[in-house]
Amino acid sequence: MRHSCEHVLTQAMLKLYPSLLMAMGPAIEDGFYFDFDYKGKISETDFPKIEQEMQKIIDQNQPIKKEVLSVKKARLLFKNNSYKQEWLDEIQNKGQKATVYWTSKDFLDLCSGPHLTSTGKIGPFKLLSVAGAYWHGDEKNKMLTRVYGTCFPTKEELNHYLWQQAEAKKRDHRLLGKKLDLFVINEAIGKGLPLLTPKGNIIREEILKYEHQLENLAGFMRVSCPHIARTEIYKKTGHWQHYRELMYAPFGIGGEDYVLKPMNCPHHYMIYASRPRSYRDLPMRLAEDGTCYRFEKTGELSGLLRVRALTIDDAHILMTEEQLEGEFALCISMIDKMFKAFHLQDYYVRLSLADPSDAVKYISDPKTWKKAGEKLEKIVKKNKLKYVIAQNEASFYGPKIDYLVKDSLGREWQMSTLQLDLFMAKRLNLTYADKDGEEKHPIIIHRGLTGSLERTIGILIEHFAGAFPLWLSPIQAIIIPITDKHLPYAKKAFEQIKKADIRVELDDRSQTTSAKIRDAELQKTPYMIVVGDREIKENSIALRKRGQKKIENLKLNSFIKRVKSEIDKKI
Amino acid sequence: MRHSCEHVLTQAMLKLYPSLLMAMGPAIEDGFYFDFDYKGKISETDFPKIEQEMQKIIDQNQPIKKEVLSVKKARLLFKNNSYKQEWLDEIQNKGQKATVYWTSKDFLDLCSGPHLTSTGKIGPFKLLSVAGAYWHGDEKNKMLTRVYGTCFPTKEELNHYLWQQAEAKKRDHRLLGKKLDLFVINEAIGKGLPLLTPKGNIIREEILKYEHQLENLAGFMRVSCPHIARTEIYKKTGHWQHYRELMYAPFGIGGEDYVLKPMNCPHHYMIYASRPRSYRDLPMRLAEDGTCYRFEKTGELSGLLRVRALTIDDAHILMTEEQLEGEFALCISMIDKMFKAFHLQDYYVRLSLADPSDAVKYISDPKTWKKAGEKLEKIVKKNKLKYVIAQNEASFYGPKIDYLVKDSLGREWQMSTLQLDLFMAKRLNLTYADKDGEEKHPIIIHRGLTGSLERTIGILIEHFAGAFPLWLSPIQAIIIPITDKHLPYAKKAFEQIKKADIRVELDDRSQTTSAKIRDAELQKTPYMIVVGDREIKENSIALRKRGQKKIENLKLNSFIKRVKSEIDKKI
Repeated sequence: MRHSCEHVLTQAMLKLYPSLLMAMGPAIEDGFYFDFDYKGKISETDFPKIEQEMQKIIDQNQPIKKEVLSVKKARLLFKNNSYKQEWLDEIQNKGQKATVYWTSKDFLDLCSGPHLTSTGKIGPFKLLSVAGAYWHGDEKNKMLTRVYGTCFPTKEELNHYLWQQAEAKKRDHRLLGKKLDLFVINEAIGKGLPLLTPKGNIIREEILKYEHQLENLAGFMRVSCPHIARTEIYKKTGHWQHYRELMYAPFGIGGEDYVLKPMNCPHHYMIYASRPRSYRDLPMRLAEDGTCYRFEKTGELSGLLRVRALTIDDAHILMTEEQLEGEFALCISMIDKMFKAFHLQDYYVRLSLADPSDAVKYISDPKTWKKAGEKLEKIVKKNKLKYVIAQNEASFYGPKIDYLVKDSLGREWQMSTLQLDLFMAKRLNLTYADKDGEEKHPIIIHRGLTGSLERTIGILIEHFAGAFPLWLSPIQAIIIPITDKHLPYAKKAFEQIKKADIRVELDDRSQTTSAKIRDAELQKTPYMIVVGDREIKENSIALRKRGQKKIENLKLNSFIKRVKSEIDKKI
Repeated sequence: MRHSCEHVLTQAMLKLYPSLLMAMGPAIEDGFYFDFDYKGKISETDFPKIEQEMQKIIDQNQPIKKEVLSVKKARLLFKNNSYKQEWLDEIQNKGQKATVYWTSKDFLDLCSGPHLTSTGKIGPFKLLSVAGAYWHGDEKNKMLTRVYGTCFPTKEELNHYLWQQAEAKKRDHRLLGKKLDLFVINEAIGKGLPLLTPKGNIIREEILKYEHQLENLAGFMRVSCPHIARTEIYKKTGHWQHYRELMYAPFGIGGEDYVLKPMNCPHHYMIYASRPRSYRDLPMRLAEDGTCYRFEKTGELSGLLRVRALTIDDAHILMTEEQLEGEFALCISMIDKMFKAFHLQDYYVRLSLADPSDAVKYISDPKTWKKAGEKLEKIVKKNKLKYVIAQNEASFYGPKIDYLVKDSLGREWQMSTLQLDLFMAKRLNLTYADKDGEEKHPIIIHRGLTGSLERTIGILIEHFAGAFPLWLSPIQAIIIPITDKHLPYAKKAFEQIKKADIRVELDDRSQTTSAKIRDAELQKTPYMIVVGDREIKENSIALRKRGQKKIENLKLNSFIKRVKSEIDKKI
């Protein structure tokens, strides 16, 4: 339906702007877009006009029909359109026939479909935005114009989506990151290289503290490694062959080539390989919050969500085959605990399998691939994870499960990952002596507990709209003395709260109480503590919770106790 | 005296090996060395013979005399020695005269002195080792032979030094690092890039935990930054001009040049610069355990002590001039606390000042340099630090104090650093609005709390000979059941100790108790807990402290309490 709606958009725009050259237009998650080459300027103020034209076509319930024809004939149909000719080159190279879709006799597009049978079946639609987009997403190509839109089966669903989008805009982590002073991206340091400010770094430290707690309980052992390695090792592991486009350019040190690490695996494997290992050492769970460096195109960078430096809360579990299920179950339960602490309760996993015939993408060994895929699906089922299967989406070294998590707006984010690796130990000759003395290769799980810390912080900013739960809040409480006269009492309260390891601030500016409360609300501070005459007299505090008008009078000790318990429970 | 002793060594060796070509031979800390070019092989087995020859020269009490002469005449004296001709080239280029020292009429060397007046004044001496050394320390030059030796005024001092050296060899952190499984250097990852194994990383985490505790108390705010930045910013700060030889080669990302960060300052400054600042924000203390990358020649790399990736426990304090003394006092007290926790109680500082006329080495501004130097010396005095002054040893951006710390063998290590910076804020246009609304530049302290974490761990391994105090011990206690029959009781104790957050292991191997104790001693485990019939009967444990034979019988709870208190006190 969305793809058909995009055809209607194209048809309408061609009518309004006949000199426009259509380039491409797919359905995407939650909508569609249309890229075109046009000398004039199209802006969002033109949307009503275009939408009216689209509505006409829909009201006319024009039939949509498929036609399969030779590339030669298709070339004639699009003879003045170099973009379509390029698509046809591709089809020709594959030795395929061309498919076009006709809407009445008015409009046709080169398109592999499928489509609705007529335009009347398209539900309520809406154009959303205009942007620039490079042809084929390549900065070296021409910049085209892109119009985004969407449609839904019902008005209700459309409205819900539009609300979600508007909400999302308000909680854009790039804006909130600035407002709440959580991170900075500075061109002088570099694009895609966020600097976490003191407040942003508190969130990072709190997440790590909890992760380390879970890891210590589960018997993970952390290590610490540098951020570079010799290029040589990535040729051995296969990253150089399969992962090259995400890696940076090498540089020389003392006659050897080095490169920023795109992942932590080889470093961890070298720790494993540093001494002889026996079955008694397994499972060996090596963990590290390792900052990795991966290339992203400049146009695709976005705040904390798409970066060039990402800290993976990584682990590599080296184990025997018998330990595989138990270790997966352990990781699955850790991830679940992490999501609970983030108030992210709705998730499912995508089980990514390989197409073993694709020798460029995967290490070639169809039998092992099949076994690994089956094992992983069995585990997913046994652990009662909701899942979908994605063919041909595995890592080059093995099948994996990726977690897809719904935030408070119902948007889906890819986060944690658990990857099975049946190849690398053999390739790097990592071994252990089994009970019978035989030398064997361990199998490996690659674990990203939340995936990337930067990305996680970005998602959490949007999920909570900056109003973090207590345990993650950079400032947990602020003390507001009504006048300077109340300052000594406020200071005493401040010291007591601070001593209890609660992140507290004292607002001693000469501002009105309401102005201070407004600022604290803007900073999303969970607890505001107002102290005045009454509080001093009763040796108490007036407590106001973020977003609530109600004021509660209580003793300082009770407040501290409550806060400590809320932090512990991560509510 | 040591330099004169080196002349005697040269004289003796020329007598024994007449075809030897002398290259150079300075006095160094704790001794001297002599580099020479010789076709034959000299080894430590030749030392008695050489020492005998040296003793002869000393016993003869030969006079040592200085002669100043023209370079031309000097060239004739060393006409077959290309190394000396090279030194003479240098002297000629400076337009200076040559100085030689004669020992009797038998021996002369090109040397600027000074020397004793006769060989009889040389105290007890000893040759120590033979090594290879490149001419001028440059790998591209010829490899020469180097003989190390030393001498002291008294036999007693010489013996003490030799004992210290022998002890140092036993506690070499590279050997202990391997034995105790603390770190790994793997050529496949790269030279000078240590990987901290789980046990080594516990030491790192414990140090950081304590540092963070001190920082939180003192109002430091940690940030988190990537390990690369655009080359451009280092040109602005001046690192590119003054620090280039320690930086790695740049690499391109999206058409811009990037480089591994050699220090954390620019990243922190960009966080400061990310919003307008006022006097209310100062002092702003930005801290980070930031891994930096600095070039060291391959030949100079050594375990954790000289590395190519070092994690600086760094901070930058941006402040007003009035805050300078208070902030220095704060840092000085933090460093003192840190050293106490490391059981390093004997230290002094080196106050490094600039030679402002050296425009290559320093930012040019003699007046500011003078002021900064005076300020820093005043602070050093006020804080009652023992100090020495080092002229022309400052950073390029300001004077500094470096801490020189004596370890348990009396060896000196350079660790913490506090650097004053009066230039960088102006250069990068970092500002704050003062009380009167005027825009001013903050002044800056660069603080390395211990300096480099890797180096600190290396020093601590040698200082403690691997027998870390409880709080730093990777394993704090090990439980040894006498037979399998005692295993259930041992397991219960294990769980209870673990729950108290004490790092405990259970040795359930089928070995004898004495073998298990021997292994625990080799691993320098602070507490060994033996459980057998008696302990089960009495519901107690038999406790043995590392290095002690005495066994103490006590309740598990008392043990846990004692351990927690020792950890807290860092004893």
